[in-house]
Amino acid sequence: MRQRSGPGVGLIGSGFMGRAHAFAFGAVAQAFGLERRPVLEMLADGSETSAQRAASALGFRRATADWEALVADPAVDVVSITTPNRLHAPMALAAIRHGKHVWCEKPLSATLDGAIAMTRAAEAAGVSTMVGFNYLKNPMVEVAREIVRSGEIGEITGYRGIHAEDFMADPDAPFSWRCRPEEAGGALADIGSHAIAMARFLLGEVDRVFASLDTIHTTRPLPEGGSAPVRVDDQAAMLLRFRDRPFTAIVSNSWLASGRDMQLAFEISGTKGALVFTQERFNELRYYRLGADGARKGFTTINAGPVHGEYGAFCPAGGHQIGFNDLKTIEAKKLLDAMDAGRDAETGFRDALSVLRVTEAARLASAEERWVRMEEIADA
Amino acid sequence: MRQRSGPGVGLIGSGFMGRAHAFAFGAVAQAFGLERRPVLEMLADGSETSAQRAASALGFRRATADWEALVADPAVDVVSITTPNRLHAPMALAAIRHGKHVWCEKPLSATLDGAIAMTRAAEAAGVSTMVGFNYLKNPMVEVAREIVRSGEIGEITGYRGIHAEDFMADPDAPFSWRCRPEEAGGALADIGSHAIAMARFLLGEVDRVFASLDTIHTTRPLPEGGSAPVRVDDQAAMLLRFRDRPFTAIVSNSWLASGRDMQLAFEISGTKGALVFTQERFNELRYYRLGADGARKGFTTINAGPVHGEYGAFCPAGGHQIGFNDLKTIEAKKLLDAMDAGRDAETGFRDALSVLRVTEAARLASAEERWVRMEEIADA
Amino acid sequence: MRQRSGPGVGLIGSGFMGRAHAFAFGAVAQAFGLERRPVLEMLADGSETSAQRAASALGFRRATADWEALVADPAVDVVSITTPNRLHAPMALAAIRHGKHVWCEKPLSATLDGAIAMTRAAEAAGVSTMVGFNYLKNPMVEVAREIVRSGEIGEITGYRGIHAEDFMADPDAPFSWRCRPEEAGGALADIGSHAIAMARFLLGEVDRVFASLDTIHTTRPLPEGGSAPVRVDDQAAMLLRFRDRPFTAIVSNSWLASGRDMQLAFEISGTKGALVFTQERFNELRYYRLGADGARKGFTTINAGPVHGEYGAFCPAGGHQIGFNDLKTIEAKKLLDAMDAGRDAETGFRDALSVLRVTEAARLASAEERWVRMEEIADA
Amino acid sequence: MRQRSGPGVGLIGSGFMGRAHAFAFGAVAQAFGLERRPVLEMLADGSETSAQRAASALGFRRATADWEALVADPAVDVVSITTPNRLHAPMALAAIRHGKHVWCEKPLSATLDGAIAMTRAAEAAGVSTMVGFNYLKNPMVEVAREIVRSGEIGEITGYRGIHAEDFMADPDAPFSWRCRPEEAGGALADIGSHAIAMARFLLGEVDRVFASLDTIHTTRPLPEGGSAPVRVDDQAAMLLRFRDRPFTAIVSNSWLASGRDMQLAFEISGTKGALVFTQERFNELRYYRLGADGARKGFTTINAGPVHGEYGAFCPAGGHQIGFNDLKTIEAKKLLDAMDAGRDAETGFRDALSVLRVTEAARLASAEERWVRMEEIADA
Repeated sequence: MRQRSGPGVGLIGSGFMGRAHAFAFGAVAQAFGLERRPVLEMLADGSETSAQRAASALGFRRATADWEALVADPAVDVVSITTPNRLHAPMALAAIRHGKHVWCEKPLSATLDGAIAMTRAAEAAGVSTMVGFNYLKNPMVEVAREIVRSGEIGEITGYRGIHAEDFMADPDAPFSWRCRPEEAGGALADIGSHAIAMARFLLGEVDRVFASLDTIHTTRPLPEGGSAPVRVDDQAAMLLRFRDRPFTAIVSNSWLASGRDMQLAFEISGTKGALVFTQERFNELRYYRLGADGARKGFTTINAGPVHGEYGAFCPAGGHQIGFNDLKTIEAKKLLDAMDAGRDAETGFRDALSVLRVTEAARLASAEERWVRMEEIADA
Repeated sequence: MRQRSGPGVGLIGSGFMGRAHAFAFGAVAQAFGLERRPVLEMLADGSETSAQRAASALGFRRATADWEALVADPAVDVVSITTPNRLHAPMALAAIRHGKHVWCEKPLSATLDGAIAMTRAAEAAGVSTMVGFNYLKNPMVEVAREIVRSGEIGEITGYRGIHAEDFMADPDAPFSWRCRPEEAGGALADIGSHAIAMARFLLGEVDRVFASLDTIHTTRPLPEGGSAPVRVDDQAAMLLRFRDRPFTAIVSNSWLASGRDMQLAFEISGTKGALVFTQERFNELRYYRLGADGARKGFTTINAGPVHGEYGAFCPAGGHQIGFNDLKTIEAKKLLDAMDAGRDAETGFRDALSVLRVTEAARLASAEERWVRMEEIADA
Repeated sequence: MRQRSGPGVGLIGSGFMGRAHAFAFGAVAQAFGLERRPVLEMLADGSETSAQRAASALGFRRATADWEALVADPAVDVVSITTPNRLHAPMALAAIRHGKHVWCEKPLSATLDGAIAMTRAAEAAGVSTMVGFNYLKNPMVEVAREIVRSGEIGEITGYRGIHAEDFMADPDAPFSWRCRPEEAGGALADIGSHAIAMARFLLGEVDRVFASLDTIHTTRPLPEGGSAPVRVDDQAAMLLRFRDRPFTAIVSNSWLASGRDMQLAFEISGTKGALVFTQERFNELRYYRLGADGARKGFTTINAGPVHGEYGAFCPAGGHQIGFNDLKTIEAKKLLDAMDAGRDAETGFRDALSVLRVTEAARLASAEERWVRMEEIADA
Repeated sequence: MRQRSGPGVGLIGSGFMGRAHAFAFGAVAQAFGLERRPVLEMLADGSETSAQRAASALGFRRATADWEALVADPAVDVVSITTPNRLHAPMALAAIRHGKHVWCEKPLSATLDGAIAMTRAAEAAGVSTMVGFNYLKNPMVEVAREIVRSGEIGEITGYRGIHAEDFMADPDAPFSWRCRPEEAGGALADIGSHAIAMARFLLGEVDRVFASLDTIHTTRPLPEGGSAPVRVDDQAAMLLRFRDRPFTAIVSNSWLASGRDMQLAFEISGTKGALVFTQERFNELRYYRLGADGARKGFTTINAGPVHGEYGAFCPAGGHQIGFNDLKTIEAKKLLDAMDAGRDAETGFRDALSVLRVTEAARLASAEERWVRMEEIADA
């Protein structure tokens, strides 16, 4: 009677996101009552020791220091890549070569070329892919998109979005991979990509981009002493035009935003209503709809509940709240669905490439101080 | 290298709370990196069919319609009881007879006698027990208690607490077990117990009680047609005196509170500060501390993060938020810790009995319109 | 073309409330476009010097240290009493003897006897009276009452109200008139009266009362050194039954509520909706109404605007906000309207006496630990 | 003993802002205890009838339909101009010619040339001027500037500001003067000027500007039937660089922002803290300062009180709240102070011209799709 074994999972990396993938694959069968329960087959990490420790803690059957062995392992059906950004492309390409499905953290790749190659390879191989834009898996964000698409708040006339955190606000925050462009460092790639992905999720494809990137703290202390010049952006202000939208959207990001842990937020205005959201309270959606009675006008704070998308997989009672890891569990579910259906998932490589291309366009726009059309940026 | 098998779990019931227990036992090893992973051994439900369906969906090895077999099964080490309230006592007593540890949903029992018997039996047998006052497992509530205990906000001088929801606000909400006193129906037992448990968690033992219980909707429609008289309370207003506190606390509850999904909230005042909390935004704690600069006076909204108790088991980044099921996972962890240590858990049977005694005192106080001392209520 | 002179105003006292009355009489003609502008005729204060200084600063024609001269002055039509509580009765009685209309700050009197005498005298003389329950003049509170009365949120089934501030939270806050019962000291008289007045405004007449009054800080330092015993309450928890309401309301107050400047708040539940209000954001009313679409359920935050009562007298644009002094201006307007109409104003002496009687009932209930019926308390 | 008569006030216009000026001049002496009380001398409006009606309602001595008589009247010392934008320049120039001080609503002029002429004339004549950027008179905004200037939140590294309302959100909102460029129509001039003024108030002089202006609703219905093409912007997204700031600020505005009555808001990030403000709750300032204890990290909501600037002129108790008209009263006070001191006021013509020049730069930047340096825009 026990659930049949489902796809074998290979996880590369055991940090924040590695654990999140492990939690998601561990919980998804229970939450969604899946007939086939994913098997936590193998975990690869930097050393045998760390891999064994992580595998034990996270419940994986086997551990390895050799990620190439993992992606080649016949018991592994889907590979989770949660390593530093510059490793995404080689790992994903290798996994795809072995016919594996891939769940990769964002940004898709440290280079545009890498992302294009990944997208082409995945599509040629016909594997399912997923990229970790987990905040888009929030049922309340899906509700927001439905409201936008259905016309419930009229024609959309404005958008302001942001992703701001403060983990680099201290000028003495140390130099790290985040400060190196070749590792997809910089706030735009790191968190701006979430803000872009959110806008695109809600509004459709970007058409052209203007941007201004700031590097405020131009050197950072090295852990080993001394300091190094910083060659990445601390924040970006972007103006985006979308293909079928009549307005200029404002999308910005910063990792210098003191006091902010997770301000991935937006306000959408329509001719008949509006939506306000922040990831800081992601079980809520503030909703305004033009009504007949001006004396009762105002924004309604909707609490997430089982009437909202996948919330009910976790809890049958509204207002009880899902957590960050539940978003990753929904992400895992969507990947498994895609694998079952033999298609790509939403927010797969193709979508992630589109986001990455917007960040490239923003860099170019900022450097050349002009609007950049998306056609100027290479595509898969 | 795989995690060694941990205690065998037997789950009775597969509704809201049954699933929550299954999620918790499924996730606890990953979240806390346990060496011994609980084994989802057996699930009992009303019928073979429903038990098998639930066992499959939730990942249990075996299913049964016979809960007595479950509590007697040698592979079961800990029994989760998530059945209707009147079944808590017989099931728990049977499980304890077989030397099992018990995780029981609240209220501990439909009768005070049952709860006393359960508490005595568990203590005599030396098993570990846990009762599902899951909201007390919230790291931010634990932080609140530390702040109260440490004197960080001075001497405590006031408390107002509530648990309000609206699932019975409609006068036409149907008659159900919730409307029967013999099944521990009524808002006081159902959600008031959470409000009492919260106050007791933060302030210590109750000394005496005044209360006024209302039954607003005196009949409710029967599902089969017609209507039945309601013999339970819809809401309660309680005044509580605590053993070592100089003030009268106000604790109330209602299941008629239209618009409220989960308003388990409190405000604590001290001579040097205050705390404001609501489960509606349970990853936040509003905090005021008297400072030197009156021009910067105000409540600070603290976002939960890894500096706060067990939050870090789920996420290393502040502001990302844990969800309802994570609270249950923490609860499971505390039970497993107690089992390992050979002691009882906090919010075990003894604590739950204390909460139940306060609800009894409140009923008596309301009926006789007088303050009732806790010594008047039978104890284990 | 200039506005004709309106009633002559005599103001006794020049503190917080004295200034507020002066502002209100100064602004009311402009705000409401009155044909007859009140004349700031005379101001009485403790000494000639302070009276002259205040009269000059506040724009009064004449100053005096002799309030008896003021209440007798033929150019004075309406007397504002903003002096310490124990002076309310003698001043009001004197003013009424001279046929003056009276605007008195709350509590109406330091004694129940005084309040009864004042009410009888005013009614016998046929003068118009107003008592400074200014928070009830807020357009959003009036909207709340309309919603309650109209049935818009169904039958009312619950109420929790509070008035909490923190100006006595420090145990070393000095002994003052606020600590003397004979001057209507104590939190219940001082701010609890606002919480009672609010509940009564919204729900109607109180029928019976249970209460528990706390004195937490039993001595306070004297300004001149040493300390004095405190014989008044720091906070009160009250349970109120209303004449035509099926539920027990919870009304409380405290002046020990650290961090709170002005938490005069309530939550009203009805079978079809709810209202949440706090004076801390008094230009807002949170509103819930049961709707067909559960997926859009939530509380709506309504911003005050010209569609809400007297707001439009101050500003034709919603969301711009009125201030505390504007509430007093509305109060002045209501008094002037009553004077013009030859009747008493709402929240006049009779209403204020009703509030005072509830505070008396609460004291008795707390002392005797029993429910007190309002008939037990003397009335005018 | 009565207050001596102060400057004679001449008010042109009696709409929203006309009334607000009248309220302010009516209240300022009481609020600030001025020795010299402004005299409401003369009101000019479109017709004799409307002028007389408004003068009577607002308490002015005389009325006229001839504004030129008003600005020439010897009893008038200061002229308030609250007429349509295109009339600001001729009226102000005439008033200045007669040596009058001028309080003019924003935008300063419908044309840049007009604004330059006004500024030059005022400075040549040595009169005091004030322009109605009333939101900058808010004590909490002044506190914000002090915090920025003092370094209390470290070096400033980011700014996002907005002014959004919804009065033109309906595509069928009728064509009016707001839709005509020659009357300073368009959202940028109308409300964007507030957002720019706020940013400049907090951060200093703008250096260069990028912008994108949208016209979403390209025709609007005419009141008389039919429709007219709209030649003004509905919203603007601006990127601003400031003279001595290392970052790109984002400043935007919209009058299509459904649900928003008064979202004049900003978030300022510094290396050691942050400030968040919205005019929607303008008695509050959200404040974050980096502290030693990460477990108590968060934004503090500060309530306005007498420790904050001019708040105390209106109320000695914190948390009681001032209103929109009180901001205008503060504005009047600052103008009277400047008149007394024989200097110009802050947010006088020179400041307003600077704001207007930024709006001009934004138009040019949007049209030519390039950064525009402020030197490119004509100045006084």
